[in-house]
Formats: sequence, C-alpha cells, structure tokens
Amino acid sequence: MVTQATFELAPYQRGYHLITDKVMAQLPSLPEHGLLNLFIQHTSAALTINENADPSVRTDLKTFVDKLIPDNDPHFTHTIEGPDDMSAHIKSSLFGPSLTIPIIQHKLALGTWQGIFLCEFRNGGLKRKIVATIFH
Amino acid sequence: MVTQATFELAPYQRGYHLITDKVMAQLPSLPEHGLLNLFIQHTSAALTINENADPSVRTDLKTFVDKLIPDNDPHFTHTIEGPDDMSAHIKSSLFGPSLTIPIIQHKLALGTWQGIFLCEFRNGGLKRKIVATIFH
Amino acid sequence: MVTQATFELAPYQRGYHLITDKVMAQLPSLPEHGLLNLFIQHTSAALTINENADPSVRTDLKTFVDKLIPDNDPHFTHTIEGPDDMSAHIKSSLFGPSLTIPIIQHKLALGTWQGIFLCEFRNGGLKRKIVATIFH
Repeated sequence: MVTQATFELAPYQRGYHLITDKVMAQLPSLPEHGLLNLFIQHTSAALTINENADPSVRTDLKTFVDKLIPDNDPHFTHTIEGPDDMSAHIKSSLFGPSLTIPIIQHKLALGTWQGIFLCEFRNGGLKRKIVATIFH
Repeated sequence: MVTQATFELAPYQRGYHLITDKVMAQLPSLPEHGLLNLFIQHTSAALTINENADPSVRTDLKTFVDKLIPDNDPHFTHTIEGPDDMSAHIKSSLFGPSLTIPIIQHKLALGTWQGIFLCEFRNGGLKRKIVATIFH
Repeated sequence: MVTQATFELAPYQRGYHLITDKVMAQLPSLPEHGLLNLFIQHTSAALTINENADPSVRTDLKTFVDKLIPDNDPHFTHTIEGPDDMSAHIKSSLFGPSLTIPIIQHKLALGTWQGIFLCEFRNGGLKRKIVATIFH
C-alpha cells in the first residue's frame, strides 16, 4: 500500500537545517513496517541525513562544502541566475534529491544521532516542495 | 505490486545527458500512485537529477567535476583500465547508482526544472544497462 | 509485502570494504521480484556500490577521498570528537546512508562488477547497524 503527502517548507537561509520534526508533522501515522521516501522537487537544494545534535556540524558542512564547490567558479558558463546557481546545481547532485528511510514499529528507524537535513544551496530564501511516499 | 523493466542505453560520450524521455519510453504505464526506482548496473557511470532546461548546466557539471576528481591522479594505483577509470569509480559513488522518484497521478512527480541525467564518466562510449522497478 | 532484518557489522578499520556476502548472509530468501533497501544508522559511515574485483579501487577511493575531504581542516569547529569526526560527517552525506537495489529472479540485480561497500570514515573501529527492508 502507498500513502503520499506533498508539502512545502517555508524558506530557509542558505545552509543545512535540521527538519526531522517539520517532516514528521506533515506525515500521516506511520505503518508498523515499511519505508518512507522523501523527494525534493528542486535542483538547487537537497535532502541528507547527518548529526542531529551539535549545530556545529551544520556550520562546518556549509563552510567546507562552499569551499569545495565555490560560487562563481571562473569556469562556470551557467551564470545568468547568479553566482550561487551553478554551485547549487553541482551540490544538489552530490547530496541527492531523495532519502529512503525504514519504518519500524510505527517510527522512522533513524539511528540515535541521525536527523533529516534540508540543504539549501541558494542565497535567496525559497519555498521548497517535498513529496513523501510511504510504503507498507 | 511490482513491475520491472530492464533496458540498455546506446553509448553516450563522456558527460552528463538528459535522458528523461528515453527512460519514459522504456516504462509501462505508470500507476496512479507509487515510486519508480532506476538502478544503473555499472561502477563507472551514474544516474542523477538536475536542471532539464539550459544545457550549460550539463557542460559546467562536467568541467567542474572533472577538475574536482581528475583523471590520472598521481596517487591512483588502479590504472590498468586507463587514466579515466579510477576517477570514474570515485564519481560513480558520489553521484550514486540509483534514483527513487515518486509517481503521482500516473506521472513522475518531478519538479518543473528536474530531469533525469545519465552521468557517463568513461571516455569510450559504452552501452549502459538500467533496471526500472515500479512499486504501487 | 515488507520483510525487515536489522543486523550489526563487526568493526572495520577506516576505509572501504566489500560486504556483499556479509549482507546477503543476513537476509531471508529474496522474493522473485522486488527491491532491497539497506540503511546504515550512523552519520560517520556510509554504504555505496563500487567495483567488486580489484582491491586497488578500495585503496584509491580512500587515498583520494581523504585528500579531498581531509581530517582536521583548519575551518572545522566541530572538533571535540577528534580530527576524523567532522570529515566523516561530510563524507557520510556525500556517499549517503542507503542503497536501493532491485531484486530479479530471487537475486540482487547487481551488475557484473558491482559490490556493496561499507565506507568506514572513523579511525576507531565501531560496530555499525544496518536495517534491510525487502519489498515485493
């Protein structure tokens, strides 16, 4: 059986944001066993899983990845949408647009330190649409 | 219910290629709600989602990622299959071999700007096998 | 239908390890057609698919990725758990915590050269928990 929910996140500033609770609030009751797929309908943002405790992990992710894949690389030709657009596209493919998370005993089977992150790669805050699909 | 289709893509040159239509042509009718999983059976190519409009996104992805993960790195020891083989293996793990995309109202629930890309990391054109699995 | 199994891998040293057989040994009989999702419940390790033959691929992956995303980057502020912790978090998001692999004729539909890898990003050996979910 399949259950789906589509929802929109209010704009977040550029960076990595813990959204586990915001996602859970949008989902129907979870089945006893199954899988949750989350899919973000954008090419300049992504979803990932990382440490849910110390906020310095989110800060360091931003600092490091912005250095690894800088805005305004001199080789970029796709520049019409701004210096942060092509870097955002590259990051979105490396982080990926979707997560598939097991459901056990009506709960997401995340590890103790795992949280769901929205990766917002654009400078301007944008609403982001996510499709949640639950299989059981 | 599960429906599967296995198909082969004709060789593409090294780079990033928009294949949404080619993939759709290989699939049976999509169910009202569900998920499509695409899985590429190779370790020197990948599947990703990125912007389906301006081809400069594909060009810049190639230029940037080839610079980030260069062929012929002096530390590579896995060199027997050519200077582009080990770089291809690294890229294939970072982009990933599979995509899971929701299906809503008999259509892939891709965002307006999202398309399915084949990432071909080898210089020599190779046929690439993909397994499509539809769940509903 | 959903079948789940949760299991623990004994500690591996930092690096990339072929675990296809160890994973298969933990799974029940596979259905005729379906999908296997593997999900690692950690933020300093990952799962990926790469070449199952020449061990030099695993060595080169380690050498290259450790250079790309070095321990002890001078900009890291999340340092309390050691110089390899923040680099491990970044790698875990880029490689990703899960794999979704098709099942055809009661077998994983991996390509000839594909194997399942555990990516262990921490120096200290840690047990790693994986949730396997089979859909058919």
